[in-house]
Amino acid sequence: MERNFRLIVAYDGTRYFGWEHQKTEKNTIQGKLESVLARMLLSGGRDQIPDPLDPEKCISPSDLPEKFLPEVTVTGAGRTDAGVHARAQTANVHLDTPLSEEEIRAYLNRYLPEDIGVSEVKQVSDRFHARFSATGKTYRYTFYTGPQKPVFERRYVTVLDRTPDLTRMREAAALLTGTHDFKSFCGNPKMKKSTIRTVDSIEILRNGPYLRLNFHGDGFLQHMVRILSGTLLEAGYGKRAPEDMTAVLAARSRSAAGFTAPAQGLCLMKVDYQ
Amino acid sequence: MERNFRLIVAYDGTRYFGWEHQKTEKNTIQGKLESVLARMLLSGGRDQIPDPLDPEKCISPSDLPEKFLPEVTVTGAGRTDAGVHARAQTANVHLDTPLSEEEIRAYLNRYLPEDIGVSEVKQVSDRFHARFSATGKTYRYTFYTGPQKPVFERRYVTVLDRTPDLTRMREAAALLTGTHDFKSFCGNPKMKKSTIRTVDSIEILRNGPYLRLNFHGDGFLQHMVRILSGTLLEAGYGKRAPEDMTAVLAARSRSAAGFTAPAQGLCLMKVDYQ
Repeated sequence: MERNFRLIVAYDGTRYFGWEHQKTEKNTIQGKLESVLARMLLSGGRDQIPDPLDPEKCISPSDLPEKFLPEVTVTGAGRTDAGVHARAQTANVHLDTPLSEEEIRAYLNRYLPEDIGVSEVKQVSDRFHARFSATGKTYRYTFYTGPQKPVFERRYVTVLDRTPDLTRMREAAALLTGTHDFKSFCGNPKMKKSTIRTVDSIEILRNGPYLRLNFHGDGFLQHMVRILSGTLLEAGYGKRAPEDMTAVLAARSRSAAGFTAPAQGLCLMKVDYQ
Repeated sequence: MERNFRLIVAYDGTRYFGWEHQKTEKNTIQGKLESVLARMLLSGGRDQIPDPLDPEKCISPSDLPEKFLPEVTVTGAGRTDAGVHARAQTANVHLDTPLSEEEIRAYLNRYLPEDIGVSEVKQVSDRFHARFSATGKTYRYTFYTGPQKPVFERRYVTVLDRTPDLTRMREAAALLTGTHDFKSFCGNPKMKKSTIRTVDSIEILRNGPYLRLNFHGDGFLQHMVRILSGTLLEAGYGKRAPEDMTAVLAARSRSAAGFTAPAQGLCLMKVDYQ
């Protein structure tokens, strides 16, 4: 009988084409999870199984050809872009398996690449849906402003060549906080659904050479956190007046907002559920 | 006129065949530094120079064929192995250039790959030699013992599947501290020179899931920190009695000591000079 499992997943998105499974591109976080789970179902969690092409031989589930794999669909709370990271992405998957939560977690961590880790597997109500049940999300954007090259953290920060004015950034952020139509901050020009979202808070924190922007809201449009980050940076650099944010929102046009900050500085930190 | 410059260099060693320039392998930290410095000398620090094959055209110094480059020799304090990292490796290089310390540093950081950074360039006495003038070095070995996969730090730690006994490790470390013949801890079986070294201190510190071993000494033999780390881990796991360290040193044989801990957990933290 199928059970519904909630997964908490951390990943370094550098090598991937984002979270979501693409028609022509399998190198996604969702694709990696689905492939390992399909092999787990077929092997019953064992590390050696009979070769379907030659039952006298045993092979690793990793060597099973795709065509033998059962269909598995993993649903993520946030469809992170190519190059974006996550510390606690949340997903759910319906699986017919006798394995325990801990056995599933151990199997995933053993067979997933080292840049994807599953920190929790928990059986949840059948009605739990990682995306539709989510009530809030926290994203963090990290800029690096130090004099040294961030050799060890280069994949997780966006380097700035000078320090922006934090007071200006905070003034601009205050005007963007709240319930607004964020169409100007939506990277998808063909977005048909509502572009109204509530951003509860935008914290702008300096810690040594790191400038961190923490966004919490009920949901975010495509590229929204990256466009907010780019626009706030432009305010911090004096390219825009903080008080212009009201007009940027009112324009309901992507061209009114600032640039899309690079993917590598963004990380999905947490997903909230009731 | 040639001046002698001291460089402080940080690098993520994952992609490199170690610090030292190899006859058949140019992908070393030393090799990267020498290549960028040679291009800097030839271009006078400019970003565009006449193409030596077609003086009507301009090219980037990065595109200069090797054969046009002047010889430059960078000497490092510690010849780190393939995969070993450094936060503050120290090197020196004699250069005939009118550029200032800060111009050299900026040029290096612009043209070096993003996993190598130069934090300081300083003109020093002609007699300064990064290796022979060094009076001490600090290396850190990091094991990771947490329940989660270290997705973001995977390149800089060695994952353990259980936590060793720190008291046993500290007892063993105390016997290895001091001036000893470390031949048992030398990875080079053909070592002709003295294998006597002084290890002033071995700190064993736990911080959350990280178990850090800080070694300070006047110098370290090839693989010595990694063999010390592997041997201390075996003591922590109960595979060796801490009090056996005295006999391991006395044996003066590589086979008496423990395994060589993987390169990725090791980092050269600091080099001391008088």
